[in-house]
Amino acid sequence: MSKRILLNAFHMNCVVHQSPGLWTEPGDKMEAYTDLETWVELARLLERGFFDALFLADVVGVYDVFRGNREAAVANAAQIPVNDPAILIPAMAAATKNLGFAWTSSVLQNHPFAFARTVSTLDHLTRGRVAWNIVTSYLESGARNFGRDALPEHDERYAIAEEYLDICYRLWESSWEDGAVVKDRRRGIYADPSRVHSVDVDGKYYQVHGVHLSEPSPQRTPLLYQAGSSPRGRAFAARHAECVFVLGPNPGVVAQYVSDTRDRARAFGRRPDDLKFLAYIKVITGGTETEARRKYDEFLQNISYDASMALLSGWSGIDFGQFEPDQPLEYVETNAVRTLVHGFTAADPSRKWTLRDLARYVGIGGAGPVLVGAPEQIADELQKWIDVGVDGFNLAYAVTPGSFVDFVDGVVPVLQRRGLAQSAYEEGTLREKIYGRGQRRLLDRHPAAHYRRAPRAPISEAPGRAAASAGE
Amino acid sequence: MSKRILLNAFHMNCVVHQSPGLWTEPGDKMEAYTDLETWVELARLLERGFFDALFLADVVGVYDVFRGNREAAVANAAQIPVNDPAILIPAMAAATKNLGFAWTSSVLQNHPFAFARTVSTLDHLTRGRVAWNIVTSYLESGARNFGRDALPEHDERYAIAEEYLDICYRLWESSWEDGAVVKDRRRGIYADPSRVHSVDVDGKYYQVHGVHLSEPSPQRTPLLYQAGSSPRGRAFAARHAECVFVLGPNPGVVAQYVSDTRDRARAFGRRPDDLKFLAYIKVITGGTETEARRKYDEFLQNISYDASMALLSGWSGIDFGQFEPDQPLEYVETNAVRTLVHGFTAADPSRKWTLRDLARYVGIGGAGPVLVGAPEQIADELQKWIDVGVDGFNLAYAVTPGSFVDFVDGVVPVLQRRGLAQSAYEEGTLREKIYGRGQRRLLDRHPAAHYRRAPRAPISEAPGRAAASAGE
Repeated sequence: MSKRILLNAFHMNCVVHQSPGLWTEPGDKMEAYTDLETWVELARLLERGFFDALFLADVVGVYDVFRGNREAAVANAAQIPVNDPAILIPAMAAATKNLGFAWTSSVLQNHPFAFARTVSTLDHLTRGRVAWNIVTSYLESGARNFGRDALPEHDERYAIAEEYLDICYRLWESSWEDGAVVKDRRRGIYADPSRVHSVDVDGKYYQVHGVHLSEPSPQRTPLLYQAGSSPRGRAFAARHAECVFVLGPNPGVVAQYVSDTRDRARAFGRRPDDLKFLAYIKVITGGTETEARRKYDEFLQNISYDASMALLSGWSGIDFGQFEPDQPLEYVETNAVRTLVHGFTAADPSRKWTLRDLARYVGIGGAGPVLVGAPEQIADELQKWIDVGVDGFNLAYAVTPGSFVDFVDGVVPVLQRRGLAQSAYEEGTLREKIYGRGQRRLLDRHPAAHYRRAPRAPISEAPGRAAASAGE
Repeated sequence: MSKRILLNAFHMNCVVHQSPGLWTEPGDKMEAYTDLETWVELARLLERGFFDALFLADVVGVYDVFRGNREAAVANAAQIPVNDPAILIPAMAAATKNLGFAWTSSVLQNHPFAFARTVSTLDHLTRGRVAWNIVTSYLESGARNFGRDALPEHDERYAIAEEYLDICYRLWESSWEDGAVVKDRRRGIYADPSRVHSVDVDGKYYQVHGVHLSEPSPQRTPLLYQAGSSPRGRAFAARHAECVFVLGPNPGVVAQYVSDTRDRARAFGRRPDDLKFLAYIKVITGGTETEARRKYDEFLQNISYDASMALLSGWSGIDFGQFEPDQPLEYVETNAVRTLVHGFTAADPSRKWTLRDLARYVGIGGAGPVLVGAPEQIADELQKWIDVGVDGFNLAYAVTPGSFVDFVDGVVPVLQRRGLAQSAYEEGTLREKIYGRGQRRLLDRHPAAHYRRAPRAPISEAPGRAAASAGE
């Protein structure tokens, strides 16, 4: 097989993720986001389509920038209500064998000591199938929920994240040595205390003094996702991320970002292809191009202007409620808006865009590109992204489960025939499925590998002392 | 049926909970605590025995008081490693229909805004089957893991807990009105923004400004467990707890605590029997008394002295490593030790207790009473506890699943024949199963009921405005 495409389904524990207005479509079942069955069925579907992972986004605030309040978001269920994503994973893991589970957790929301244990617990229970998407939050409302007057300024958020990761890495990689857990039932020794070490950090933002409460899980550090786009964010991704989530209107724009971030990775001792890039994309397909176009038109019709603007205003921090929906955008563009809007209108610069057009564009695509067509056409388009250096996709949905059913039954077989999608899973942890068999843990070139302790020979048995076997 | 006995299984996401040394027994499977299957099978077993709930304990530190270090705890897996308990619940919920799930979370470990959402998520996914055991932590090592030099002093821990609960109650009970979620697909309105309210708390310990991110779950506030024993702790339990976890050597001692706490509840406008008391107990049973005694003797033989002392030292804060194992206790008793030890040696005051005896006693019982006998004998003993006002039991295990298999197959049928155990589950949420059908949410007399908003009539439809139906 030539280089296969990595496939993530992009989702969220809520009614409306990136398709504002479409929860009312007959084919959308996300009103039942509080039922375990909804998620178990989705996970089974994705595994049937040999997806690598289900990626769960999250926010810890509401979209209240549009018109200066949360009304549009609440009325349209635009990422509110939104439940805890990590809690969904265990039941889905019990119903699948190979599918991975990535979820978002902001460094603002949990203390790293508690968070590191939750992650290790999930990695144990899923036998090494989890990934953490590291975020630093963008909603001011999220900061206020956690006792801050405002978000720390952008670069400081990354400084907090660096310290947070430093603590997590220490807990995951260095607290319990390989070989610490001996499980010697005959001698009644579970672990060798001389191989379990305290983590001691007196940082600027966090202090931790103690051993990790979890023994080493299959991956130790979970597979790491990140999506930094600012210069500071790119440096962070170049240093820490294994999978980078990237959003851009077309392969050309994304290719620039990909190659820049791969280059930056060298500065941290990593190789460019240690980083896997997953491009955000939405696919609307059907048996024929006509059928796909019909679906697209129906969806476009039902995009909610308010919900779309609530999301866009929240993402950008610009209140689009100050502009008239039917004014041409060239008229209302301020400098801040110009930069933002340009990314979207570039899709069709010949057109005179109004805010209403933009809302529909943002709504149908979820701020990213949309591919519409028959499965063969979709496969052709996806290949263009791969050709410029992207490794795979974060597949957003218009409706659930419909969009994923269409992709699994229509597009995946085409990709498989072309040798671009897997027809069986690699064994082992999620990291092994991405990087190849044997790569259970972080690559040696990853900066967190420095936290590992040098392997020790098993100590010989001595009466009354813990003994370590070669096992782990 | 006369008053039925409430049954909880008492467990922990670790190898050794309250039976130090017994993980090496052939019948103990808790070495596989990192496998989802272990927990799914346990949940199914408990549901077959019509247990009310599986109650998961937790600690966020290690037992390092004994000999001033963590060696004994780590070597013997005495509550270390210990994984996140909440993460176990969804997979067990997917495999059962009626069993409840209680878990412990300290106010030290998570910010209340994030915690409240995790709880609501679990309550949604389990359809209202969760209970939270509110704890304030007792291990100094836990405080150091979260950036504190030491635990806040005892009464301040309760002050923190009061503020933590105040925030959680506001989020669960008052942020989203009944009727806020309208799910009007025709008009494209998911929720009525005028019925979703911000929670604003500027407390001494926490600040929260925002709406609860979760819509109301079946129970809103989960069923509340607590286990306060100090005067401040009793007042806290009397005010907040629905189920109170109580530990004492015999029915007489426990009866005093029960009646005192019930009396205190009146001061908070509650009725004495609004509180349900669950006594800690360990049962070792078999087909006959002889078989049960044989098991008991085998278990007693294998209790680990070090692990037992590690736990007892951690619970009490007294380093029992300073005393000789074979010295009579009357000799080594200091004032602090005297009080503690008295509770145990009261079980057999005629005997000259050594520390080694105490370790075995604490080890086999897990610091609480042990019943040994044939199922009929066990049922007789349990009835004595019920007769003095206890409502049910937290059933600790010697080995898992063995201890629960013996209880479900041996004791439950006897209790059922006597009309003391249920043979079918009440429908609805965990709270309904305890308090009766229709009692999905907190009793009106519970202090958190004051946070509820007065019901409003559905507002009539007005163009362009969100409409609320009578539903929820």
